[in-house]
Amino acid sequence: MNNFVYNIPVKVYFGENQLQHLGEELAKYGKRVLLTYGGGSIKRTGLYDAVVEEIKKAGMELFELSGIEPNPRIDSVRRGAQMCKDHNIDVLLAVGGGSTIDATKFMAAGAKVDHDPWDFFNEKWAPIKEALPIVSVLTLSATGSEMDAGGVISNPETHDKIGRVESPTLLPKVSFLDPTVTYTVSPYQTACGAADMLSHIFEVYFNMNQDLYMLDCFMEGMMKTIIKYAPIAMKEPDNYEARANLMWTSSWAINGFVDGGKRQAWSCHPMEHEVSAYYDITHGLGLAIITPRWMEYCLSENTVSKYVQYGVNVFGINPDQPAMDIARQAIEKTKEFLFGTLGLTSTFTALGINDEHIPVMARKSCAGGVLPGFVPLNQQDIETIFRNCL
Amino acid sequence: MNNFVYNIPVKVYFGENQLQHLGEELAKYGKRVLLTYGGGSIKRTGLYDAVVEEIKKAGMELFELSGIEPNPRIDSVRRGAQMCKDHNIDVLLAVGGGSTIDATKFMAAGAKVDHDPWDFFNEKWAPIKEALPIVSVLTLSATGSEMDAGGVISNPETHDKIGRVESPTLLPKVSFLDPTVTYTVSPYQTACGAADMLSHIFEVYFNMNQDLYMLDCFMEGMMKTIIKYAPIAMKEPDNYEARANLMWTSSWAINGFVDGGKRQAWSCHPMEHEVSAYYDITHGLGLAIITPRWMEYCLSENTVSKYVQYGVNVFGINPDQPAMDIARQAIEKTKEFLFGTLGLTSTFTALGINDEHIPVMARKSCAGGVLPGFVPLNQQDIETIFRNCL
Repeated sequence: MNNFVYNIPVKVYFGENQLQHLGEELAKYGKRVLLTYGGGSIKRTGLYDAVVEEIKKAGMELFELSGIEPNPRIDSVRRGAQMCKDHNIDVLLAVGGGSTIDATKFMAAGAKVDHDPWDFFNEKWAPIKEALPIVSVLTLSATGSEMDAGGVISNPETHDKIGRVESPTLLPKVSFLDPTVTYTVSPYQTACGAADMLSHIFEVYFNMNQDLYMLDCFMEGMMKTIIKYAPIAMKEPDNYEARANLMWTSSWAINGFVDGGKRQAWSCHPMEHEVSAYYDITHGLGLAIITPRWMEYCLSENTVSKYVQYGVNVFGINPDQPAMDIARQAIEKTKEFLFGTLGLTSTFTALGINDEHIPVMARKSCAGGVLPGFVPLNQQDIETIFRNCL
Repeated sequence: MNNFVYNIPVKVYFGENQLQHLGEELAKYGKRVLLTYGGGSIKRTGLYDAVVEEIKKAGMELFELSGIEPNPRIDSVRRGAQMCKDHNIDVLLAVGGGSTIDATKFMAAGAKVDHDPWDFFNEKWAPIKEALPIVSVLTLSATGSEMDAGGVISNPETHDKIGRVESPTLLPKVSFLDPTVTYTVSPYQTACGAADMLSHIFEVYFNMNQDLYMLDCFMEGMMKTIIKYAPIAMKEPDNYEARANLMWTSSWAINGFVDGGKRQAWSCHPMEHEVSAYYDITHGLGLAIITPRWMEYCLSENTVSKYVQYGVNVFGINPDQPAMDIARQAIEKTKEFLFGTLGLTSTFTALGINDEHIPVMARKSCAGGVLPGFVPLNQQDIETIFRNCL
């Protein structure tokens, strides 16, 4: 069991009508706020107007950057960092899902350096030592960016999509989580968000190191929560209980708490990032397709005990069976949930992805060496997993 | 489901040999540190020497206050607050269990006011607006004071023992949780700590309001963790896995996370505080005796569903039985754990407590009115519960 430092000083306002506290929280950091958002859905839902009203009530000066893409791109980050410098921004307010919040984090860091923000991600690995303060208003339960210290940025020119869980300076100071804001999230995006959250948990849970039982219990509880409530939220978009459980789970699946005592690189996320980088598919969908194939590939006599724990505690599979049988049933249940209950596309082929880029995506996933993690994977291993996704 | 604000900015160093970071953390707050501790067990174990060495290495000036009692008394708080004023203390370092940390919190608050610290607790209810920074080194897994914003102080003159979960200024800035430090905790104190932690969870879990399923799962996981590891820690005091799971559970049982979306007064704690105030028994022991009688008293057709959830999810009781049967089995399992597995004394009588003070303890528990909570209890209800403990 490893040592760890727990340090998550994000303040979260959870529930309805909490936006009344937005002005007072922003004003703690200065006068000039850069509001960042994506494609404009927040204008259709009225959230934009509500946010702007609170900013004005607080007497702050408002600047705006819109058009942040799903799989957010380095150009948006560059644009935002430059705006922060040009307008002497005091605090950034990200209103959106993980893409908007991720991009905003690196704008906040980019504002504090003289170099290109892509240098945080390329071979220069420029350190992130400071960042402007960030506040977020979450509109999609998925990535957990609202309560973590990292983000993922794409560079379409180089087909790179790079995640760096980095400096505590990237932690939002305050995040607003209002489940009713997610009522307008489509069944499809709800399903993709659920797959993303599940994957965040799998990446930590599937681990053969000795760990804290207490945290395994918590992860199993979060998996059961997602399995219980994602289908409800898809059928009844305005079910508060479902949206609230998914929203708080999205934050806790990845804020670092469940990692306590474990140190392990992730597996499915690095692989999926390469697929998204080449095909710009939705992150959660890519994870859904890869995850069960990764589970199948990693199953062995050495790892089977973890699958048994998962199958028995999460799906209630009868423990009085041979371990391998339980493990295979657990993988089957996972597929049923992702592709049946959530209705997600189950193959790359169905998305128009063929084997053309599989070798390069596999090579980049493991940086030409070995992807450490639950089971270490080399390029050949990853190619096989990708081909099993076709 | 209620709104809530999540805000727990306590930094935790978890694991062995983390004390090497003590000096750097203390030094963030100034030069002059008041070290507080209890009866001197930390001198026998060597922890005192290790702490003092880190303080000296950091070049800080050390002041000491020892002799803080179990069920800490207002006189210790007064003494500490005065020392802070006299010596212009910058930061307080509590090394001990919940009693030491609780007392230190109110010393830190008392240092900032001109009035008697007891005014925080008596009918004046003086507000706690600021406090000196507090750092803790935990030696006993039980109260969760290392990660929460409150504490309990006794006044033997008035037979008062009063808990106030109060100002965020009382949250420790940093807490050091080294499971090996608890290797010297006796089986009896380990058992009392386990009963205390369980009670913290029961007070929130037993609740008929609509709540976050995800948090119920987490509470059930913590209960299973305590039930699994407390007996191991009693038999094998230096079992790291057991001590680590108990230690991290003690913090999360009461740091406020599990309350998300729930607002409910506690029941067993206010009752037990009156018993401790009159008889100075160990808090966790008092809770162990009261809890199953409180469960029995509150069981009804209205509340039975929560007992069923508890019995099935925590003890694995077969769900295909009448609800009342499951509930009674769940209470029986609770008794078996507390009085059988943990070996705690099961009655007041066995502790030499008779019915003499029951009416006054019951009246004070509910302040002469109704104790709100899972099931609202008036003086007569509480008297009955107390008598069932005899």
